Amino acid sequence: MKAIEWAKGKVRLIDQTKLPTEEVYIEIDNYEELACAIEDMQIRGAPAIGVAAAYAVALGADKIEATSKQDFLGQLKVVLDRLAATRPTAVNLFWALERMDMVAQSGKDIEAIKADLLVEALRMDADGEEANMRMGAYGAELIEDGYTILTHCNAGALATEGYGTALGVIRAAHGQGKKIQVYADETRPLLQGARLTAWELIKDGIAVTLITDSMAGYFLKGGMINCVIVGADRIAANGDVANKIGTYSVAVLAKENNVPFYVAAPTSTVDLSLASGDEIPIEERKAEEVTHIKGVAVAPDGVSVANPAFDVTPHKYVSAIITENGIAKEPYLMTLKDMVRGK
Amino acid sequence: MKAIEWAKGKVRLIDQTKLPTEEVYIEIDNYEELACAIEDMQIRGAPAIGVAAAYAVALGADKIEATSKQDFLGQLKVVLDRLAATRPTAVNLFWALERMDMVAQSGKDIEAIKADLLVEALRMDADGEEANMRMGAYGAELIEDGYTILTHCNAGALATEGYGTALGVIRAAHGQGKKIQVYADETRPLLQGARLTAWELIKDGIAVTLITDSMAGYFLKGGMINCVIVGADRIAANGDVANKIGTYSVAVLAKENNVPFYVAAPTSTVDLSLASGDEIPIEERKAEEVTHIKGVAVAPDGVSVANPAFDVTPHKYVSAIITENGIAKEPYLMTLKDMVRGK
Repeated sequence: MKAIEWAKGKVRLIDQTKLPTEEVYIEIDNYEELACAIEDMQIRGAPAIGVAAAYAVALGADKIEATSKQDFLGQLKVVLDRLAATRPTAVNLFWALERMDMVAQSGKDIEAIKADLLVEALRMDADGEEANMRMGAYGAELIEDGYTILTHCNAGALATEGYGTALGVIRAAHGQGKKIQVYADETRPLLQGARLTAWELIKDGIAVTLITDSMAGYFLKGGMINCVIVGADRIAANGDVANKIGTYSVAVLAKENNVPFYVAAPTSTVDLSLASGDEIPIEERKAEEVTHIKGVAVAPDGVSVANPAFDVTPHKYVSAIITENGIAKEPYLMTLKDMVRGK
Repeated sequence: MKAIEWAKGKVRLIDQTKLPTEEVYIEIDNYEELACAIEDMQIRGAPAIGVAAAYAVALGADKIEATSKQDFLGQLKVVLDRLAATRPTAVNLFWALERMDMVAQSGKDIEAIKADLLVEALRMDADGEEANMRMGAYGAELIEDGYTILTHCNAGALATEGYGTALGVIRAAHGQGKKIQVYADETRPLLQGARLTAWELIKDGIAVTLITDSMAGYFLKGGMINCVIVGADRIAANGDVANKIGTYSVAVLAKENNVPFYVAAPTSTVDLSLASGDEIPIEERKAEEVTHIKGVAVAPDGVSVANPAFDVTPHKYVSAIITENGIAKEPYLMTLKDMVRGK
């Protein structure tokens, strides 16, 4: 299952806001609409946002009518800037936009650049899926037969170019014939765990039990969970991990109960320019995501709301970071660099 | 505001499943209907369940036609057993039923017992509210001007005979002119924080910010919270506290971030017969509470669900237990006994 793909000059994506009750596919042929789809989380998940932005650049570039390469690059910058403004936390977005910018800068002429940009986006998409499968193989070594695994949010096929990061590890272990089961945090406010992770795992025939976020501690304390695996939106050089709000809580509860806490993410999620997670910008989203669920009010009118979409888990809570190039452990300051370099 | 009250031979309660979008009052004149209202959580919160059960016994007793005191007590036992089977975790229910049973046993004749039972229920109701106000006064000493207080679930007027336990402390501090603000966990699955706590605090003009349960750790880590106050459904002799699912997680996160974690509960919530929280029965509720929110599906059809309604916070995470007789601290094994004895 592909959350996003290139289909005959358009980008085709499954509208994740409508899952699991409706499977609606959208076709988009312009970058502005795709930028809105990223903002509205019709497409979400750090790696998927990266590849969506790359496709959006290709779409935007294709429509540019320019008289010179310089003119073209000037117009392309508007596209890049628009996409960079969609969501601030996941670094894969900026990583993808930088890669696309470099391709544009080094292109020969306008037509060649347009073609190069599409090739680059397609390559990113294919490389990403392949990287997830390698990540899955590395991560599966940490999963023993009979394990019960807790995950938070959705780091599955829907969040990536395919296969998934955290769910990729789970898929790989399942594929090896290990009997595993998953506890999925529902992940308020937008319920990606209930709506997307449960849906993906049921499709794949992997046993899943849905719980509210507030129950994770109960099952960790009760000895029901053998390990936690989550994805990431940005990882600082020291191993601090930004991920969906609530991840930090799960990590603290895992450590308190001596349960390993693993992060699975491609090296494009690692931001070596940031010394620690304190520097990662945290997106604040609108109040309605908390006060309304699928349009139904669950709080008094006009109540004040805070809605940070991410939190940062300090590296001391992170037992290992699984990447497509291997498994990083403390000291992350050294091991993450090696992973990024592909050592 | 009274969640439950005696009104001319009937019990009048506000249907808490409909708040905050609708304020619907129900009048009940028979114990079976009131038992169902407890099960369906139209009335909820440990102290409120206790007084509701007491009124239900009075309603049930009034309808008994018996030929002898022995016959009467036999029929009353059916009423007591039915009510004891409504919800297993909150000990106030059993405490109230035992008190009502003792009154019945020691009554002179059938008519006297019927009258005594109603008087006892009314006294329990009035005593409970008065106890909450004393608890509030004790607890307010722990709250400094300018504090931001995190609470989980609803331990307010709606959960009690009036005024509230955790929210009673907050009300008392507010009443003393201290500038405080509250962060309210929404408290999935039934959203008592979003629906009830936010509603109560807005009514009282106390500043409240609604957050999802998964955000509590973020704000505790960020240094935004000065203390946590929650209610309790049962407290073991060693100070272990059963309360709404998610309370344990908040307690661990508070300790990890050096934020005091307070429990406010009347001594009727203390169960000295249990050595530790491991012995407290945890109610498992139906899957639909997790898979549907106000009737709207938020998860795939047929997904497995776990839905424990409570968890147990070990006493090592509990900074103090605020009762109507004073504030208990470690060693709880000694101090809680003193509180129960009224020392």
